Amino acid sequence: MNKNLVMQILEKNLLSGKLTEGNEVSIRVNQTLTQDSTGTMVYLQLEAMAIEKIQTDLSVAYIDHNTLQTGFENADDHEFIKTVAAKYGIVYSKPGNGICHQLHLERFAKPGGVLLGSDSHTPTCGGLGMLSIGAGGLDVAVAMAKGYYYLKVPKVLKIELIGQLRPWVSAKDIILFILGKLSVKGGVGYIIEYAGDGIKQLSVTDRATITNMGAELGATTSIFPSDEITKDFLIRQDREEDFNYLQADLGASYDKEMVIDLSDIQPMTALPHSPDNVATVESVSGIKVDQVAIGSCTNASYTDLMKVAKILKGKKIHKDVSLVISPGSSSILKMLSDNGALGDLIQAGARILEASCGPCIGMGQAPKSKAISLRTFNRNFQGRCGTDNAGVYLVSPETAAVSAITGHLTDPRSYGNEVQITIPETYHISNNYFIFSDQDSWDTQIVMGPNIKPFPINKPLESSIKGKILLKTSDNVTTDDIMPSHAGLLPYRSNIPELSKYCFGTLMDDFHIIARKYQGGFIIGGENYGQGSSREHAALVPLYLGVKGVIAKSFARIHKANLINAGILPLIFINKDDYAFIDPLDELEFPDILEALSQHKEISLYNVTKNIYIKVKFEGSSRDAQILMAGGYLNHAKEIVL
Amino acid sequence: MNKNLVMQILEKNLLSGKLTEGNEVSIRVNQTLTQDSTGTMVYLQLEAMAIEKIQTDLSVAYIDHNTLQTGFENADDHEFIKTVAAKYGIVYSKPGNGICHQLHLERFAKPGGVLLGSDSHTPTCGGLGMLSIGAGGLDVAVAMAKGYYYLKVPKVLKIELIGQLRPWVSAKDIILFILGKLSVKGGVGYIIEYAGDGIKQLSVTDRATITNMGAELGATTSIFPSDEITKDFLIRQDREEDFNYLQADLGASYDKEMVIDLSDIQPMTALPHSPDNVATVESVSGIKVDQVAIGSCTNASYTDLMKVAKILKGKKIHKDVSLVISPGSSSILKMLSDNGALGDLIQAGARILEASCGPCIGMGQAPKSKAISLRTFNRNFQGRCGTDNAGVYLVSPETAAVSAITGHLTDPRSYGNEVQITIPETYHISNNYFIFSDQDSWDTQIVMGPNIKPFPINKPLESSIKGKILLKTSDNVTTDDIMPSHAGLLPYRSNIPELSKYCFGTLMDDFHIIARKYQGGFIIGGENYGQGSSREHAALVPLYLGVKGVIAKSFARIHKANLINAGILPLIFINKDDYAFIDPLDELEFPDILEALSQHKEISLYNVTKNIYIKVKFEGSSRDAQILMAGGYLNHAKEIVL
Repeated sequence: MNKNLVMQILEKNLLSGKLTEGNEVSIRVNQTLTQDSTGTMVYLQLEAMAIEKIQTDLSVAYIDHNTLQTGFENADDHEFIKTVAAKYGIVYSKPGNGICHQLHLERFAKPGGVLLGSDSHTPTCGGLGMLSIGAGGLDVAVAMAKGYYYLKVPKVLKIELIGQLRPWVSAKDIILFILGKLSVKGGVGYIIEYAGDGIKQLSVTDRATITNMGAELGATTSIFPSDEITKDFLIRQDREEDFNYLQADLGASYDKEMVIDLSDIQPMTALPHSPDNVATVESVSGIKVDQVAIGSCTNASYTDLMKVAKILKGKKIHKDVSLVISPGSSSILKMLSDNGALGDLIQAGARILEASCGPCIGMGQAPKSKAISLRTFNRNFQGRCGTDNAGVYLVSPETAAVSAITGHLTDPRSYGNEVQITIPETYHISNNYFIFSDQDSWDTQIVMGPNIKPFPINKPLESSIKGKILLKTSDNVTTDDIMPSHAGLLPYRSNIPELSKYCFGTLMDDFHIIARKYQGGFIIGGENYGQGSSREHAALVPLYLGVKGVIAKSFARIHKANLINAGILPLIFINKDDYAFIDPLDELEFPDILEALSQHKEISLYNVTKNIYIKVKFEGSSRDAQILMAGGYLNHAKEIVL
Repeated sequence: MNKNLVMQILEKNLLSGKLTEGNEVSIRVNQTLTQDSTGTMVYLQLEAMAIEKIQTDLSVAYIDHNTLQTGFENADDHEFIKTVAAKYGIVYSKPGNGICHQLHLERFAKPGGVLLGSDSHTPTCGGLGMLSIGAGGLDVAVAMAKGYYYLKVPKVLKIELIGQLRPWVSAKDIILFILGKLSVKGGVGYIIEYAGDGIKQLSVTDRATITNMGAELGATTSIFPSDEITKDFLIRQDREEDFNYLQADLGASYDKEMVIDLSDIQPMTALPHSPDNVATVESVSGIKVDQVAIGSCTNASYTDLMKVAKILKGKKIHKDVSLVISPGSSSILKMLSDNGALGDLIQAGARILEASCGPCIGMGQAPKSKAISLRTFNRNFQGRCGTDNAGVYLVSPETAAVSAITGHLTDPRSYGNEVQITIPETYHISNNYFIFSDQDSWDTQIVMGPNIKPFPINKPLESSIKGKILLKTSDNVTTDDIMPSHAGLLPYRSNIPELSKYCFGTLMDDFHIIARKYQGGFIIGGENYGQGSSREHAALVPLYLGVKGVIAKSFARIHKANLINAGILPLIFINKDDYAFIDPLDELEFPDILEALSQHKEISLYNVTKNIYIKVKFEGSSRDAQILMAGGYLNHAKEIVL
């Protein structure tokens, strides 16, 4: 069979399972990346696995999210990650070096490899032909510890780009155009593979803009072939040795195909509050703009910022506009500085921020009340900018820069001739923000500040278990109910004991006190238990408090997976009416839980208090059951020998 | 009589009163500056005075403190200040332009003039021969509205600098040396006037470093003569027309004199946690350093940062050090960028922050727990850096840069030959971050975001007043008790109604509810009522809640002044034992308060509930009494015609 890019890479990295769509397989992970916001938990999990060395070719720990440092917590997290990195030979990227995805593209990504990252925009490196997947922290920890990643074989969507881009239309406009066609759900279950003659007009960083925002399509990831343009990029990054060609076989098969004529695309914008709420800039131009923010892992490459500098050279930012620029990497900032472009930006009146994620993740630069903010970023969800009633428009760097001058949303084609950028013969390369540890630093003392607490570890499932009902909930309990998350609690993401004080805080007071009093126990849930965000903490905190199982009418998909990973039993009533026969503080027993689980049988639950038996069951794969029996994914992964 | 610099300027600007030490006089204010943290309240006060035009030659509203913008409040404050500035013809400096004192020195300060600023480091412009005084927000608002400022004629301390500075010793070391000699109280009641041949070695920005940190001596301000060096600076800033010579008369008299031989000074540092806790760097060298922060209104000039860049050129920041640099102004950043110095800093691994106050005021870059942080700033109070158990060492830029390379506190003399900086023929000058409003913008709509509430205005004192006792306190109540201030409440500094919910929060619950229930009333205090910080909010919030007077055994000086400015009567018991005869919710009457106050007589207080008379008194000047009778300083100032 003629293979597409995705199948070529999966096949090369396949460890177990059969490569048929929907089947669960494990693949070898060549590289991992973490950022600091998710990274602290990843490295707590890695520490908990007590491994001797990491199994990836390369793992990099970037610091790019929590760089404002308004309290000691951020710097403590950085120090913790730095010491873990030293111990395990993980490359550490100091704050100020830049955004993980931009840096990884510049320095480490390799065509044809597999990258797993604890950040949803990991697909950025797909622009360079690397299969780059964003995953949960625990998956990344296991990938480092064991070298593998389990996934369901996705479908592959081919997007063929044909035709010529028009002046002032760039990569951001292409992906916004695709978002308009496919919507934020259009990529779910797919990996998107780009092809066609149109891609020859796109540099590696243009391609990375497109694969980066593929995350907004819901796709598992997106990928471009590796070609002469890829080679040229790697040569200019002084790492030609990392290049290899990667092309889909002639006549390769795809699950779905679409063709986009680049000449159909005009400058685009995503209106508030969704990345797929797109329109042409022309159709909505004239809106008064209060803030323009340029940067992020989507649009902060050398070329992006050079275009902005050329547009702004000799001009003045509109008096009512605050223009903020956060470069993608320290190398880009240095190049802009050395060639005079940064001077042009400052001369125009731009605010130059540190090379980091910054305003894209709501870390600063919240605009004023009811502001209109144009951003070259990837998401314009309500409130993400830090101001609930602001309206964020996603645009290209060109549209952003031209609008910063005029003070209103402006089609860049009105500016005049399109600016042209020459890529430097060699990109600036610096190692001075990196710490490359050798692998013989096992004696490194891990530094855990007072806000960092060890990851809770479960025990293998016993043959029978018992305990009290700690809480009985109604339908549609969310992960925000289970583990509230807001600005006040964010600094405690590395501190599960502290977080546990707020567990189920929207539903009852002092759940943690009751849970401790009875040394853990069980939760009764209604329909759709655990809907909402995917946060792992909604499982880890109950685990910390001794919750052994949740018996519900039904579960939300991701939370159920997180419960399994934590080793908390997610059980459902075979007869939903039995929900009525269990009340808070009832004493439950599961006399043969281990046996029932291992044999995929019905599970018998004895309500000691009411002296009745109730039938429940576990719905999941054998691997899921094994994870539960091992006491969670960490323990399960420890047992596995590759 | 032969006059010193201070007397020359005071005499030139004198409006009323006699220039003898300790006497209260009013002087003409030529310029004002505000920053955004204090500025919002200043402009609310200005708005409350309902003036038609400002009386200063120049007033500038800088945005440099709250530039992180983690919520809408900061940007709303900026917008509010911008619109007030437009209405009154005040120059507005956008965020990103830089630090108020550095910018004011570059662009606006004039030798021989009087500058009043709502920031304690306003004395920076004393380095250019301008009498530059930090004052409360209300004083700055009145200065804009009416053109005057009242002060007690200070004593003048002459510091004569002689001898030659040794290599690697610079302005920061001089002021640290002086702090070691005089202590943080040594300047109280004084203006410090620098003289002597030694000053010829000091550039204007060197001098500004010294006058800036004169604030840490407790001095009213510090000032240098205006000489050829001043002229040269102004020529390079393209404003020679602002220059005039300013020299103390030969044989001028001073209240106190001291001589410092510059050749006695070595590289100095202030150890945690006080700016006067000084030692030579040599004596404490070797301490492991976690963070180095360079910038602030003290040490972020072109020359300072060029020295740092030259030291770091071709070097690498130590792997365990986070070096952050916040330039003093956008012009400095542009010059560093254009001449390659910024590239050198980036190449070395420095984190480049926006031109703003930043870490100096705890806005970001809190170091890790128990960190050692070297900072070129002016204050190292415990917790100011954002990390309570960190230790901050104040040092020169030279010491900071060299230590960033070695990773431990290092005497810069160990580096080798001292770096030499050539000042550019012309400094970069840009107007693109400034908005220069013309004075015909009276129709400007003032934009007040939802978190900005009008300033409370008092009414003229009635002939008799009455009300209930809302609270009775013990001795030593602080302004932190009266109006708590912490990170959670800081965003509400422009929102007195919201703040009022926390009034007296450490002493009782729901003071604001009781105060509203009884439509205001009185407070009974013990000894030293209102000690602690100088915050005006500790008077404005009680005013908002209807507090008419505080009767105490004694008052802390600054809080008493703030009560008078708010129009709240600060009264003391003639017989302190009478404190025992008033209890919470007693009903009080002051039958002849207006007459007694106007005639400086004892005041009779009738405790209706207990049916007893108690004698109290007001201690203050006639002007203080007039302010109280007018219902506060704003009302009083409105009545005055210059």
